[in-house]
Amino acid sequence: MIDCRPELSVRGPCDLRCAETEDWHTKCCYRLHNVLYTLLTISNLCPMDHDGLNPNEDAISFRNDTGHCRSIEHGASAGSPREREERHVCGSKVDFVYPEVPFPSARVFAATGEEALRQLVDRHHQYLLKSPIHYLFPPDKEALEKLVRRSADFVVEMCGGPRYYTSTRGEPRMRSRHFPTTIDERAREVWLICYRDALKETGFPLPILEEFWNWIEPFSIRMINRRTTWDPPRRVPFASIRDAFVP
Amino acid sequence: MIDCRPELSVRGPCDLRCAETEDWHTKCCYRLHNVLYTLLTISNLCPMDHDGLNPNEDAISFRNDTGHCRSIEHGASAGSPREREERHVCGSKVDFVYPEVPFPSARVFAATGEEALRQLVDRHHQYLLKSPIHYLFPPDKEALEKLVRRSADFVVEMCGGPRYYTSTRGEPRMRSRHFPTTIDERAREVWLICYRDALKETGFPLPILEEFWNWIEPFSIRMINRRTTWDPPRRVPFASIRDAFVP
Repeated sequence: MIDCRPELSVRGPCDLRCAETEDWHTKCCYRLHNVLYTLLTISNLCPMDHDGLNPNEDAISFRNDTGHCRSIEHGASAGSPREREERHVCGSKVDFVYPEVPFPSARVFAATGEEALRQLVDRHHQYLLKSPIHYLFPPDKEALEKLVRRSADFVVEMCGGPRYYTSTRGEPRMRSRHFPTTIDERAREVWLICYRDALKETGFPLPILEEFWNWIEPFSIRMINRRTTWDPPRRVPFASIRDAFVP
Repeated sequence: MIDCRPELSVRGPCDLRCAETEDWHTKCCYRLHNVLYTLLTISNLCPMDHDGLNPNEDAISFRNDTGHCRSIEHGASAGSPREREERHVCGSKVDFVYPEVPFPSARVFAATGEEALRQLVDRHHQYLLKSPIHYLFPPDKEALEKLVRRSADFVVEMCGGPRYYTSTRGEPRMRSRHFPTTIDERAREVWLICYRDALKETGFPLPILEEFWNWIEPFSIRMINRRTTWDPPRRVPFASIRDAFVP
């Protein structure tokens, strides 16, 4: 069953033919706030692995969970008198969906206390400075210490500790704050693996490790501001790093 | 009316309370291929102007076309016994929706012919080399000529001319081909304005000017691979540049 929210409205249909079943489908564009008004168009006509910029294709493939339709025909046949006027339209699309970010509960701060979190952030930065993305961090000792302190203020607060960060810097807005720094998918993976190593080395309490990881893993995806591939950022689930922590 | 496509399926509801009406709403996640499975979550909980990373908010505002609900309460009240276990979850979101790209019809090539399109692309690159993004282009004369030739092959073919591009290079996949080059929102705007000036200087035929512009304007948005703001890329509608072409 589908929840048809009454505030959705339709912006005009456009018929599309399923090449396999010869059924006609209606492509609807929902006006759903400003940003998501062509969701079904995106979904049906421009799957992520289709660059969508080739006007010479006469069928666009798309994935479908039910396997019902695999392609939709569009355009007139080549050489028809109408061809001159025909225009290929590459549908709207999104790059990828940023996954949800579950922030840690205050259980984390309760289990670690402030000092252990500060040590963790400190160790993380020591690893970062020895990593392939060391150049993203200030070479100046004082600037680096300031950065580490602020970063720890953020982590302490997000884990349920005192409001060190927001009381001094305001809303975190971490993606916005990171815009000046070029962060691609690879840099994010390096950052994350440095965290894994820092968590291991500082003996982060195992009972809350998964909760902490499940925050920083999707959180780090939000910092990506340089795309180098159509592939969505690689997920690094806790299960894939758990073994590193088995004593 | 809403077209409820049978291949949509629901991934599990989660109730949310509207602070204004005190109605309970069901937030549904639709499994709609791989990429769009949390559309309504994104839409309701993380509008584009909300950075979504502040776990200290106790209400998230969102836009709603009907004006029915303006905020949704979440989380327990501060200090409640449950608070320790409560976790703020920042919902899934997308960066922005790439607008659809209407490719030119063959009317364009019929009106210009090949030579005029090649001159246009040549002039465009002359402007680019004098622009703030000159550093994106090869300093080597031979490499530059090759780039301009390929670019013209592409434009000629997309406008309805011979298949110079796809016959030699395969599918255009222009976003993919541009991944190695850092292109931010500003670079895209410069590229577009250089095109405007080249179109003017080469005397592009007025009857097909709008059609051509309505292709390159959204097309150029797809090349952006470095984000420096949450704002979606600025649209440059034909109406905003039309005056430059009035004799």
